[in-house]
Amino acid sequence: MKQVIVVNEELNLPRGKLAAQVAHASVASLVSSEAEQQQSWFNVGMPKIVLAGENLSQLQELYEKCQELKIPAYLVQDAGKTVVEAGTVTCLGIGPATPEDIDKITGTLKLLK
Amino acid sequence: MKQVIVVNEELNLPRGKLAAQVAHASVASLVSSEAEQQQSWFNVGMPKIVLAGENLSQLQELYEKCQELKIPAYLVQDAGKTVVEAGTVTCLGIGPATPEDIDKITGTLKLLK
Repeated sequence: MKQVIVVNEELNLPRGKLAAQVAHASVASLVSSEAEQQQSWFNVGMPKIVLAGENLSQLQELYEKCQELKIPAYLVQDAGKTVVEAGTVTCLGIGPATPEDIDKITGTLKLLK
Repeated sequence: MKQVIVVNEELNLPRGKLAAQVAHASVASLVSSEAEQQQSWFNVGMPKIVLAGENLSQLQELYEKCQELKIPAYLVQDAGKTVVEAGTVTCLGIGPATPEDIDKITGTLKLLK
């Protein structure tokens, strides 16, 4: 089991803001998953991988694919009190799910450096 | 209720690595908290704040204070497959807990930019 977070790199978020948004995606996607998926992921040390996404429309497409394949996912919209406008989609959390399932969605994306 | 993640800025982690470590701290500290704390935090939208810590010894001191005050916390040690050496302490997750309790621990730290 693993979790993947895809970041909207069009926004070029500063480090602290980025980290908070990725953490939000991780927790919110976790909460949207089933107890069995959660436990399996905890048992293997909760691996999570942060990937670079291009822009909003890519994140929305990936999110729709997750919904089609019934993979837990959560699209983070920032509350917009700082840095970015309210409603801005900053990142997408996917899983926990099997690597096979997640790689169908994000297999071509690169690690966020 | 809120959650705070203190980053070991001595390591100067790259953005993707930093984000993954902060997400790990967030989830692990959440899992170490009680069901009532978790639910109260979910109810207010899971606020989380990322702060800049100076170095390992500061993070360890903060962690010990959390333990004394019985505030849920989790010190993240990296598995060390990339970027940093195995066992390196990258960040500290604190809470969910009340802002009053958390501010006793991290009240003097600055936001991570």
